[in-house]
Amino acid sequence: MSQPTEIPPGIAPAIILVEPQLAENIGMTARAMANFGLTELRLVNPKNGWPKKGVREAASGATHVLDAARVFASVREAIGDLHYVLATTARERGQMKRVTGPDEAMREVVGRAGEGGAQRVGILFGRERVGLTNDEVSLADAIVTFPVSPDFPSLNLAQGVLLTAYEWRRAAGRARLPFSGEMLSPPATREALLSLFDSLEAALDRAGHYPPDKREIMARNMRDILHRMAMTEQDVRTLRGALRALTEPRERARSDVGPTRA
Amino acid sequence: MSQPTEIPPGIAPAIILVEPQLAENIGMTARAMANFGLTELRLVNPKNGWPKKGVREAASGATHVLDAARVFASVREAIGDLHYVLATTARERGQMKRVTGPDEAMREVVGRAGEGGAQRVGILFGRERVGLTNDEVSLADAIVTFPVSPDFPSLNLAQGVLLTAYEWRRAAGRARLPFSGEMLSPPATREALLSLFDSLEAALDRAGHYPPDKREIMARNMRDILHRMAMTEQDVRTLRGALRALTEPRERARSDVGPTRA
Repeated sequence: MSQPTEIPPGIAPAIILVEPQLAENIGMTARAMANFGLTELRLVNPKNGWPKKGVREAASGATHVLDAARVFASVREAIGDLHYVLATTARERGQMKRVTGPDEAMREVVGRAGEGGAQRVGILFGRERVGLTNDEVSLADAIVTFPVSPDFPSLNLAQGVLLTAYEWRRAAGRARLPFSGEMLSPPATREALLSLFDSLEAALDRAGHYPPDKREIMARNMRDILHRMAMTEQDVRTLRGALRALTEPRERARSDVGPTRA
Repeated sequence: MSQPTEIPPGIAPAIILVEPQLAENIGMTARAMANFGLTELRLVNPKNGWPKKGVREAASGATHVLDAARVFASVREAIGDLHYVLATTARERGQMKRVTGPDEAMREVVGRAGEGGAQRVGILFGRERVGLTNDEVSLADAIVTFPVSPDFPSLNLAQGVLLTAYEWRRAAGRARLPFSGEMLSPPATREALLSLFDSLEAALDRAGHYPPDKREIMARNMRDILHRMAMTEQDVRTLRGALRALTEPRERARSDVGPTRA
């Protein structure tokens, strides 16, 4: 697949994995990035070499991200050309840096890209087990942490990337749903709806469904239910057809039977 | 680990995986749920049986979710006791159902749990390759879809669960960050700050750093830079100490050397 061009390079943040170990995680990171339109992956000193066996399978088609990934020997080299760097951490590090969640952080990142263009941003993600070192965190401008449950705070590396990428896309105003649930038919006119009510009530009357002293209350109750359906024109036609099918054969049968009983 | 009790059962939605195939995905689903405080997992007809080899490792400690998971033979049975069901789909299904993103959907879910309690909600996630069938979607009240990039829309099952769980926690007002970046020291008073400016300017003066015709402009420029640091009281003390260390030995040395040169 050729490089997608939906988002111009340089505006979206680079995702920087520091000494990532598992091919699985790197592949899933690439996939998560591609899902939300990020394409720039940087790897700092991947453990046990690069490329890794199994990483392309784990990327599930997002191999363009892997193929374009750049490898660096240190965090310092990986961030040198950037203008703003965030460090993701799960625990407080005793550093006086701003700490935000991914939503607020990505709004700021998008804001930066908008100012005078070419402000490159990078987001550091640490090692699977121990995260980033305090020294590495000190190289960043600010910290991002995720609003996880205190009962189970350990977020998988690729899952952290996913949340970040998702929030970036939302902040960048690109989070459009692939499809919507717009009704293909407009709401029914009141005349069509009330006419359906009439037909239903008449059929229930003919079936002897309403005790005389309860008729008004039961009819109003039924109208409330039908109103809550928020019927479209098509819905009214559909229900009218179903009502007719349910009532007419029985009424023809009843009138067939009628005379012989009299 | 005993069942976490941070969120009372019955308020958070149940996550329902329909015919999930890979142990990896089910384990990662359990982990994603635990990360954001969801505990109720339902499995419909897991492919190739249950439990699965490898699922506990993939759950990375979220085994309490796996242990409490309930298995059903069909979607209908899995949702029978629920009051509201959402179906996640990537593609439009030709059904006139409301479609929202995970953020809006979870706000509604939280709203429902708040009304007269005990409104149980479930969210259906389909098979890894083909998702949910149209019939299964028709059993749901509404559809949730994710705002993915059209260049790469295929979201991994556990990643979809993660986004949903994250958005639920945010909607439920529980998305607190585990720590904040509050400065431990208050902002410096203007007197302390201006005093630092004076000291720095005096030191630069003594070092002959300012050409006379540029002194005012350069001094103001430096103050602008220092203002942007938004220094705390502690910052001022720290920088004052560094300034002293940088200037006093040299000045002592200069005055030591002075007389012999004259």
